[in-house]
Amino acid sequence: HRRGIPEAILAEGKSPEQVVELAETALETTDRALLTRLSDRQIAALESAIGESFPDATVERRSDAALIETPDRERPSLSATVGIVTAGTVDQAVADEAELVCRDAGATIDRVDDVGVAALDRTLDQADRFREADVLIVAAGREGALPTVIAGLVDTPVIGLPVSSGYGYGGDGEAALYGMLQSCTVMSAVNVDAGFVAGGQATLIARTIDSARDRPD
Amino acid sequence: HRRGIPEAILAEGKSPEQVVELAETALETTDRALLTRLSDRQIAALESAIGESFPDATVERRSDAALIETPDRERPSLSATVGIVTAGTVDQAVADEAELVCRDAGATIDRVDDVGVAALDRTLDQADRFREADVLIVAAGREGALPTVIAGLVDTPVIGLPVSSGYGYGGDGEAALYGMLQSCTVMSAVNVDAGFVAGGQATLIARTIDSARDRPD
Amino acid sequence: HRRGIPEAILAEGKSPEQVVELAETALETTDRALLTRLSDRQIAALESAIGESFPDATVERRSDAALIETPDRERPSLSATVGIVTAGTVDQAVADEAELVCRDAGATIDRVDDVGVAALDRTLDQADRFREADVLIVAAGREGALPTVIAGLVDTPVIGLPVSSGYGYGGDGEAALYGMLQSCTVMSAVNVDAGFVAGGQATLIARTIDSARDRPD
Amino acid sequence: HRRGIPEAILAEGKSPEQVVELAETALETTDRALLTRLSDRQIAALESAIGESFPDATVERRSDAALIETPDRERPSLSATVGIVTAGTVDQAVADEAELVCRDAGATIDRVDDVGVAALDRTLDQADRFREADVLIVAAGREGALPTVIAGLVDTPVIGLPVSSGYGYGGDGEAALYGMLQSCTVMSAVNVDAGFVAGGQATLIARTIDSARDRPD
Amino acid sequence: HRRGIPEAILAEGKSPEQVVELAETALETTDRALLTRLSDRQIAALESAIGESFPDATVERRSDAALIETPDRERPSLSATVGIVTAGTVDQAVADEAELVCRDAGATIDRVDDVGVAALDRTLDQADRFREADVLIVAAGREGALPTVIAGLVDTPVIGLPVSSGYGYGGDGEAALYGMLQSCTVMSAVNVDAGFVAGGQATLIARTIDSARDRPD
Amino acid sequence: HRRGIPEAILAEGKSPEQVVELAETALETTDRALLTRLSDRQIAALESAIGESFPDATVERRSDAALIETPDRERPSLSATVGIVTAGTVDQAVADEAELVCRDAGATIDRVDDVGVAALDRTLDQADRFREADVLIVAAGREGALPTVIAGLVDTPVIGLPVSSGYGYGGDGEAALYGMLQSCTVMSAVNVDAGFVAGGQATLIARTIDSARDRPD
Amino acid sequence: HRRGIPEAILAEGKSPEQVVELAETALETTDRALLTRLSDRQIAALESAIGESFPDATVERRSDAALIETPDRERPSLSATVGIVTAGTVDQAVADEAELVCRDAGATIDRVDDVGVAALDRTLDQADRFREADVLIVAAGREGALPTVIAGLVDTPVIGLPVSSGYGYGGDGEAALYGMLQSCTVMSAVNVDAGFVAGGQATLIARTIDSARDRPD
Amino acid sequence: HRRGIPEAILAEGKSPEQVVELAETALETTDRALLTRLSDRQIAALESAIGESFPDATVERRSDAALIETPDRERPSLSATVGIVTAGTVDQAVADEAELVCRDAGATIDRVDDVGVAALDRTLDQADRFREADVLIVAAGREGALPTVIAGLVDTPVIGLPVSSGYGYGGDGEAALYGMLQSCTVMSAVNVDAGFVAGGQATLIARTIDSARDRPD
Ligand SMILES: Nc1ncnc2c1ncn2[C@@H]1O[C@H](COP(=O)(O)O)[C@@H](O)[C@H]1O
Ligand SMILES: Nc1ncnc2c1ncn2[C@@H]1O[C@H](COP(=O)(O)O)[C@@H](O)[C@H]1O
Ligand SMILES: Nc1ncnc2c1ncn2[C@@H]1O[C@H](COP(=O)(O)O)[C@@H](O)[C@H]1O
Ligand SMILES: Nc1ncnc2c1ncn2[C@@H]1O[C@H](COP(=O)(O)O)[C@@H](O)[C@H]1O
Ligand SMILES: [Mg+2]
Ligand SMILES: [Mg+2]
Ligand SMILES: [Mg+2]
Ligand SMILES: [Mg+2]
Ligand SMILES: [Mg+2]
Ligand SMILES: [Mg+2]
Ligand SMILES: [Mg+2]
Ligand SMILES: [Mg+2]
Repeated sequence: HRRGIPEAILAEGKSPEQVVELAETALETTDRALLTRLSDRQIAALESAIGESFPDATVERRSDAALIETPDRERPSLSATVGIVTAGTVDQAVADEAELVCRDAGATIDRVDDVGVAALDRTLDQADRFREADVLIVAAGREGALPTVIAGLVDTPVIGLPVSSGYGYGGDGEAALYGMLQSCTVMSAVNVDAGFVAGGQATLIARTIDSARDRPD
Repeated sequence: HRRGIPEAILAEGKSPEQVVELAETALETTDRALLTRLSDRQIAALESAIGESFPDATVERRSDAALIETPDRERPSLSATVGIVTAGTVDQAVADEAELVCRDAGATIDRVDDVGVAALDRTLDQADRFREADVLIVAAGREGALPTVIAGLVDTPVIGLPVSSGYGYGGDGEAALYGMLQSCTVMSAVNVDAGFVAGGQATLIARTIDSARDRPD
Repeated sequence: HRRGIPEAILAEGKSPEQVVELAETALETTDRALLTRLSDRQIAALESAIGESFPDATVERRSDAALIETPDRERPSLSATVGIVTAGTVDQAVADEAELVCRDAGATIDRVDDVGVAALDRTLDQADRFREADVLIVAAGREGALPTVIAGLVDTPVIGLPVSSGYGYGGDGEAALYGMLQSCTVMSAVNVDAGFVAGGQATLIARTIDSARDRPD
Repeated sequence: HRRGIPEAILAEGKSPEQVVELAETALETTDRALLTRLSDRQIAALESAIGESFPDATVERRSDAALIETPDRERPSLSATVGIVTAGTVDQAVADEAELVCRDAGATIDRVDDVGVAALDRTLDQADRFREADVLIVAAGREGALPTVIAGLVDTPVIGLPVSSGYGYGGDGEAALYGMLQSCTVMSAVNVDAGFVAGGQATLIARTIDSARDRPD
Repeated sequence: HRRGIPEAILAEGKSPEQVVELAETALETTDRALLTRLSDRQIAALESAIGESFPDATVERRSDAALIETPDRERPSLSATVGIVTAGTVDQAVADEAELVCRDAGATIDRVDDVGVAALDRTLDQADRFREADVLIVAAGREGALPTVIAGLVDTPVIGLPVSSGYGYGGDGEAALYGMLQSCTVMSAVNVDAGFVAGGQATLIARTIDSARDRPD
Repeated sequence: HRRGIPEAILAEGKSPEQVVELAETALETTDRALLTRLSDRQIAALESAIGESFPDATVERRSDAALIETPDRERPSLSATVGIVTAGTVDQAVADEAELVCRDAGATIDRVDDVGVAALDRTLDQADRFREADVLIVAAGREGALPTVIAGLVDTPVIGLPVSSGYGYGGDGEAALYGMLQSCTVMSAVNVDAGFVAGGQATLIARTIDSARDRPD
Repeated sequence: HRRGIPEAILAEGKSPEQVVELAETALETTDRALLTRLSDRQIAALESAIGESFPDATVERRSDAALIETPDRERPSLSATVGIVTAGTVDQAVADEAELVCRDAGATIDRVDDVGVAALDRTLDQADRFREADVLIVAAGREGALPTVIAGLVDTPVIGLPVSSGYGYGGDGEAALYGMLQSCTVMSAVNVDAGFVAGGQATLIARTIDSARDRPD
Repeated sequence: HRRGIPEAILAEGKSPEQVVELAETALETTDRALLTRLSDRQIAALESAIGESFPDATVERRSDAALIETPDRERPSLSATVGIVTAGTVDQAVADEAELVCRDAGATIDRVDDVGVAALDRTLDQADRFREADVLIVAAGREGALPTVIAGLVDTPVIGLPVSSGYGYGGDGEAALYGMLQSCTVMSAVNVDAGFVAGGQATLIARTIDSARDRPD
């Protein structure tokens, strides 16, 4: 039986009505609904509909992602920490998507914003915190050097998450993805803006670690 | 103190003499030398030189990678299993590079060759074995669909390793890398033919799991 | 005399008036009109105009494609089955375009939705149904692995139809097209979102089979 | 039970010894061996080895492909014709690979060389011959316009086979592949130089037609 | 003294007021104004402004290009014919831009629309007409094979003009440009949608021919 | 009857024997043979074979192109001048291929070497000479700015001929081709290193001018 | 202590409120605020807010960039001149962004607009002025040849600034960037439209020169 | 009068005889010869020829570049320092080419090898040294993050020099170039492996600084 990746509803390209219906079905059958890439109109429709159909549900919003849970839902708790690191404001929404996937799975999150390669001191200052995580997601746009620098400082496995910022040639996250795939330090990467995938992969690793802590054999 | 990624000697682009010298220095200072992308001429030079300077050393060869250890070396032992999966003969050398990195670090290896998308039965038959690993490296060339299929079958974290096979458009591993980055199942990926990076990332995850088993807190 | 590919009106980039005029001319001269890539405004204009000028005509809609026929039209009937397979909701409109081309030509359609690589069981369960078709169109976005998997299961010729879904690098159907061109199982492919071409090619094959059944020599 | 695509041995990247061994195993178990992308050295090794181990075997060579059969092999016979068309000398080796795949499967072959877009008369003169085939493979390099022109003349399904000729920008078959995917007439395509895939796809279609002729229901 | 390429006003990216001002300045100083890539709003502004400031001016419109001339302007007359050929409706606006550049320079225009590779007969029927031109501009989108076919029929120099039609991979005129640069018949090409450049180059050739007719030495 | 583009034998990818045979056939049937992209081995084979079979033939060599003519050949004479301009040593072989095509057709050639954008004075000094040609071929590698500069100085039609020099990003003539297609002065272009095509296009224009001079109507 | 690159607020992708807040904070703490890529709405919001909160501040606008300074700000003064050169109207906004960065840093600016490769005389006329600058920023779109031409005329270091103009293939500044990276004269380049980076780099060079003038040692 | 960029002989693609001749001419006319991209055979030919023709000349070799000077040559001396920084062994040859260009021009060189992003401490330790240079050339392959990191530490202008190392996707220096163009710190860049250009640009800046020191006005 697979317990791995949480089902999520990718709102992009769906009508507000479709999103509401999918969310309500998810809540009815699993007591939770995880939604990503929500537009303002979809969020408004969701809030008003869920407010009526599931008045006791709680909603956790991060940028354009949302996790809705009924009181019956027992969120799992993993004994594993996912560190999530961002450089600029522009990386936060993508990191938020990853974070909500990990939260839904019950991992402990250690979020560090506003470090970066142009402000190296702030990055170096956090090295010990990075080392304490079991797995790190490092989001970065432009030239995407931050995960390379962090992976060079710590032994924690790093998942590089390229962000579609940057202008001109190699913008839209292409330079960042290239840099992570070509990095001179060890890491793996996911696609540009794939916060959901980075969060999912970190969750799978966190679960494995949680199991190891449970059954140390 | 970092104990993470083993130092390896990338033989490509170096003279046989340079490779020998680097290997001997590594053996003198760390009792081991890991070498990748060795040509036949470099291997011959290594064997004859090491045979003289370190007559007691043992050599483990996998395709064009080699791990040399003196009797003084105590290889670590991790209580974690890395599954390594390949589809065709052409994927084996790249997988071998990854495997030797993990072996050197002391992980248990479960290697499965000759499964593939065109031979789906053989893949499905191994699903339980894939589930038992703590982390999987899945190497695939051409259209690179194997890690997608396996990641859909199991909850184990999968590291996709694209291989530079394939002809015509999207050959040289480009289609495989694209497929892994665009996969509809959750995984992370490394660059084309980056066996060393896949092995290094699996090693970092294996160490974290090993620590969790040691200190279940 | 060619009886091959049905003429279709590509609505994209035309004004509602131009589309109506082209449809009416087609109905007058051939008793049918096949239209693709219709916008909502074009559909509204068509419905109201045709409702007046051809009140007895019937309209078959599939996503943004439409087939209009007057009562005089005798739709041909081919003794050949085209299987049309899709993975996700996002693939359906492109598959619908292909389907309507084949319907117009009189082929029997066997449509299978909601199978996919991440849900391999549902795909395997349909293998016998895929085998019964004379030719298969398999639509897939993201990494486009579904036609590869199906072509590995059956001997039916498969036409891969890449769909412009997916995000980040290799999105817009590029990874899917690459995967189909690089597939380790035998298939041919058409361009991204080219439902019309896939349907046309399946129709040509279906006609050849129909002729063979008629004149077994 | 699949009877679809013949197993072939891709010689490229293998040593002469490996090729010989694979060919001998194929001959022992199936009484035939199909080999593609053979170098001169591999051919020499094959000829001398097979001459000894299977002295009664017959060898059919086409450019760098070869079909070896023991006297026990009963080549199937399909009642279906595959037309194979090339423009220039440079297209012939790729077309030969496709042809041998179809011959091995028992299809009737109608091969037409030396037609082309720059010599349109010769192409137009052959239109009736093209129409008589059940399926056409049209190989073309440079700008790859020949399959477009032929698909515009006939109702036979066309499989475009781009060839890696051409110089400068869009050479190596890229312009040819683009042209076939973007063709204003209906066709499907395979990857650049993928003679094996084109032959395999034509074979699958030919088998379906052969079955239809056998069982016209 | 250069008398070569007419000055034209590229309206794209300018405000209606800027376009009007530039046109009025051109009319005051040279008695003519050639404008390309006009939006509907710019055209409306132009018509009302010029109607007032130059009430006697005549306006020749072709798609989104316009040539305005005061009664004082003496349009030159070249004894040379530019043939302009298009395949589909979608190519016409780009060809119109080229045509107006040639008209302004005084060349005789022979325009042939609605020929194409999928309708080869109509193309072949016009071969003599193509031969009578001194230089041909052939516009084509999708796979861009029309200039290749025409250049193979005639000795007239052909300027290939790729048009940004087509969908999926190689769309936006990329496949068409590749095809023209890679053409197996002799021609030169301009950039995608560069009607102005094609018209300018044809004009330069037409002037040279006109001079040769004037001064046959 | 077409008298346009001379037939040439593209030696690249052919054996010395094939090249000799094609050349001898051409000499027998047309009293001339034009060969391009000859290797040293092919040239040696040609010289010795032709020396025997056509001892009276004359050979004109330009880099790796050659024009062989028997005494019976009456080379045509066109009353039209093709200017051919190169920037660096590296452009000369490609320009030579173009030149020989034009010579064979009987055009007057005005060749100007060693001008360039980094040596602007030398370029400006030749402006009058450029103006006297009926058509100009301008070859340039690296950033390919020379045809842009020359086309800005003169009214003669310019055919840009990009050369595959340059290193790093945009090398192999890619930047040069881009620059010519994107040029802010009017010109048309051929593919990278396509000396044959540039020469052929210039020849077609030269013939048209020659005809105009002959029949000034 | 770093005194290098001025902090700037990249307005793109921020709400008018966020932009106002960031500007006000900058004015409070540093007496100046430099803003780039402002939309009309952001400018309006800025003007009204700053008009109230900093009624004595002065605003220097250049296209979509703005420098706001309170009366307390003492703008530095560098004894170094940055020449800024543009070809067409379309290059001006990008050059303006660069200029404002240099002005804020106190460099003397020598701005030259409306030169270009198609109007070579105007460029040559300014050569002495270019020579007097300590460093030159040359902005160019389309084929981007202007910095190459200027760098060939003078010994002043040139920073090439590609502008995202141009259409068709290699548009969006790609051809311009390629041309500058591949230039046959010596220069360095920044990314497409990266006026801020070009201005920043020129500022760093200007400061170094200013220091050298201060401390000639 | 220009005194800017030294003339260099690009040996690549020339015969040993041509290289010798060009070098001897340079020595005769300017008492020096700077050669780049020399092969072993060219170096051998040079050494033996120059040994005879200019027995008193001195030769300074750096990787595949060489500077030859007769005793009459008075090397200029600039009062300016160029810092040249490399990460790995693979970057050294490209940096050596840059260095020799600067040496020939008389700049003081401060060369720092073996720093890098994976070994951040060594980089941080050299920050003061980087700050003392007047201009920095930073060479880096793979993901090319080193110039970004260094430019973030110092106010010295940085010229990024991407090196064609790295494997798989974005190898050959592409990722490095992208990273430098997309860098979140201010720098300019030259093309991949363009050591000559980086050295030339640094020389131009060094001369400007030297002039400023000479004439502080
Ligand atoms: N932001 C996201 N990025 C990628 N995949 C997602 C995202 N959000 C949801 N998904 C997955 O995409 C699929 C959504 O499919 P559907 O909602 O049926 O179109 C599910 O498997 C989700 O788990
Ligand atoms: N969705 C489609 N994709 C590709 N071609 C199409 C499509 N729909 C119609 N066509 C073909 O495109 C052409 C339409 O051309 P027109 O309507 O004249 O612009 C006809 O040959 C149609 O058969
Ligand atoms: N250098 C060249 N570049 C492009 N086409 C060429 C060249 N030389 C010859 N050709 C043409 O290419 C074709 C040669 O075809 P073949 O010799 O049959 O392979 C003929 O149409 C020649 O006119
Ligand atoms: N390694 C190099 N990279 C780029 N340009 C170079 C290099 N070496 C020399 N050059 C320049 O390239 C030109 C060489 O031209 P040539 O030797 O005539 O082919 C001269 O302007 C040299 O200064
Ligand atoms: Mg690390
Ligand atoms: Mg999974
Ligand atoms: Mg199959
Ligand atoms: Mg057809
Ligand atoms: Mg022609
Ligand atoms: Mg001109
Ligand atoms: Mg200069
Ligand atoms: Mg800095």
